[in-house]
Parts: sequence; structure tokens; C-alpha cells
Amino acid sequence: MAGRGRFITLEGGEGAGKSTQAARLVAALAADGIPVIRTREPGGAPGAEAIRGILLGQGSWDSIAECMLHFAARREHVARTIRPTLEAGTWVVSDRFTDSTLAYQCFGQGVSRSVFDALAAVALEGLKPDLTLVLEIAPEEGLARAAARGDSNRYEAMDTAFHARVRAGFRAIAAEDPGRCLLVDASDSPEGVAAVILKTVRTRLLP
Amino acid sequence: MAGRGRFITLEGGEGAGKSTQAARLVAALAADGIPVIRTREPGGAPGAEAIRGILLGQGSWDSIAECMLHFAARREHVARTIRPTLEAGTWVVSDRFTDSTLAYQCFGQGVSRSVFDALAAVALEGLKPDLTLVLEIAPEEGLARAAARGDSNRYEAMDTAFHARVRAGFRAIAAEDPGRCLLVDASDSPEGVAAVILKTVRTRLLP
Repeated sequence: MAGRGRFITLEGGEGAGKSTQAARLVAALAADGIPVIRTREPGGAPGAEAIRGILLGQGSWDSIAECMLHFAARREHVARTIRPTLEAGTWVVSDRFTDSTLAYQCFGQGVSRSVFDALAAVALEGLKPDLTLVLEIAPEEGLARAAARGDSNRYEAMDTAFHARVRAGFRAIAAEDPGRCLLVDASDSPEGVAAVILKTVRTRLLP
Repeated sequence: MAGRGRFITLEGGEGAGKSTQAARLVAALAADGIPVIRTREPGGAPGAEAIRGILLGQGSWDSIAECMLHFAARREHVARTIRPTLEAGTWVVSDRFTDSTLAYQCFGQGVSRSVFDALAAVALEGLKPDLTLVLEIAPEEGLARAAARGDSNRYEAMDTAFHARVRAGFRAIAAEDPGRCLLVDASDSPEGVAAVILKTVRTRLLP
């Protein structure tokens, strides 16, 4: 009987390579025989994906309403996908989680930390990742990568000052909780970044 | 220069006649020369209507996620529609507001009062209706009326024990805050109910 699965999140600004690295990490863990799923936010459960559709589409939101929507989606993701999976002994690798809301909505859009804390308490009831890899890249470089990728969302279209605040937010989050977070230089090649991530996971989470 | 507009909400279970009475009340106030808009929840602003679409459609939600979605929609409704309208000196009549979340999600679905209070504080920042008319009807009668009306939603389809808890919730809300709320017998004719509502509004809110 396996114990509880481990919960790993990948965080960072636009074009930092989170999706690519999540896929590589899941493949490497699976190759080691570890049961693992890959998920993402906003989304990761049917209702949460429906919220993603209205969040990332066109339209503008009151910044607190937007923060509440992210946490509503997260609550659904946690209740339907993350908690049951971890409890079944399977690892979870999520492309974005709570730190993205702190970086984008609080640092980027000015929502207060007290609003964030109140919503996080309601949505998460104490759930925290075991390890968070914060992929660090200059906003210009990340946005150029995201543009080259061809898809786009409402956040990518925001101004450079916004993206600079988000980056500063992620650095502050990593500095505040070094036991959980590691800042990873994402300007390296995908192979190089993947190697750093896998080494960190093996060192911190595997016996 | 007019003062702040007054904020009136109509509450109650399915088929209690809230929409009909909201329309009658707005017409009567407008005939008295009072600037007034009619709005509704979930909805009442573009983003909030988008949330309504996913909330009332098919699918099932974690009960706390559902409560968070209602408050996210309400935050958008308050920020975009209710506050600016009241500040412009126009009255607002809303078909449902926060009491519906307390009755449906807390009394009906078991969400705790502390979760409700935390979300209400974030979403509303102290905004309260000046007057709330709670339309009271036996659930069987209300559901029969709603079915005859032809449209339907996810809440109407819930079991009779749920609707009994919602009704008890609305009675408790009205009893808890008699200065703001009035329980109105909605089994009377639409004309009779409208007369009671208009008399109450004139007595409580007009000089």
C-alpha cells in the first residue's frame, strides 16, 4: 500500500516553459515507475476548465472577482482531481497553482494579501505543494516564446510593467518559502532545465 | 443633486414570483418618478452572466466551489452595476442577492457559515440591501409554478428535502434581521403581493 502521493507545481511567467517541463517531468517519473498525473490551472477538472474558458477569454474583470474565479476553479481542481489523486498514492504535477494567483492577481493586479489569504483558506483548507519549481525568465524573452508558440491569452496581452511585477512576485514567493520553492533559470535549453528539475525532485522528494 | 439610490432585493425559493414582483415594483417606482433599474443574480453584469451560464447549466460542483462562483459573480455584479448605479442616485431592484447564497449553499447544501462570511466580506466590502423582501411559498407550490413557466435550472431539479432546507433558511434569515427583511406571503395573487411590497417600500424607504 503506497503512501500519499507527492504534489509538485511548476510556476512562472508566460513562456517560461512550464508545460514542456511538466510533460518532461511526468515522463521521467513514470519511467522510474512512479504513478503520476499531469494537470494544469486554471482547469484540471471539468468545472474548472469551464471557468478557465471564461477567465482566459476576452472581457475584463474586477480584479477581486478575477481572483475569486481563480480560487473557485482551484477549489474544484483540488476537490475533484488533486486530493483524490494524492490520497490514492499517485503523484500530481501541476502546470501552475496558487502561486500564480499570488503573482498575477496580487503582485500584478494589486489585489491585497488579506483577500488572497482569505480565499486561499476557503479553497485549499491547508493543502500545499511539496515542491514548487519557479521557472525564471526575462518577461521579454518569455513573451517572445509565448508569441512564437502561436496561442495567446488575456494575460499575455497585458503591458510590460504588469509582467515585470509578476516576475518580481514569483521571485519574492520563492525567497519567502525556500523549503518549498526553487527558482530555476529557464533561459537554459529545455534539456538543461529538465535536468535541474529532475535532480531537485530526486534530491528533495525521493528516499 | 440626488443622494445615493436605495437597494432593494427580492429573495425566495423557486417559483415564488420574484421576477414578476421585481418587474412590478420597478414599474411602480418609475411611475412615481424614481430612477430605478432592475437586475438579477446570478448575473447582472457581462462577466457575472457568463458565470451564471456555467453555474446553472448541467454539471455538478463541489459545494464550496459553487459558493465561491456565486460570490465571484456577485463581486462583478456589485462592482460593475450595483455600486455605480446607487452612487449615481438610481435605485436598484435585484431578483436575488446574497441571501440566496446563504439559503441555497449554506442551509441547502451544507456550506459553513464561516466560509460564507469570509467570501461575503471579500465580495461585498460591507454592502447590504436597504430592504429585502423574502417571498414565502410552499416548495411544492413554487416548484409547480416554476415547472409551468417552462424554463428550469439545476436547483429546481434538486430534491424536496433540499427545497425545504432552503425555505427554512430564508425564514431564519428574515427572522435574524427584521430591520432589513420582510417575509411576504407569496401564495396570494400577484396583485396582492405587489400591493404589500409597494406599501412596504413606501413606508420603509420613502420620506
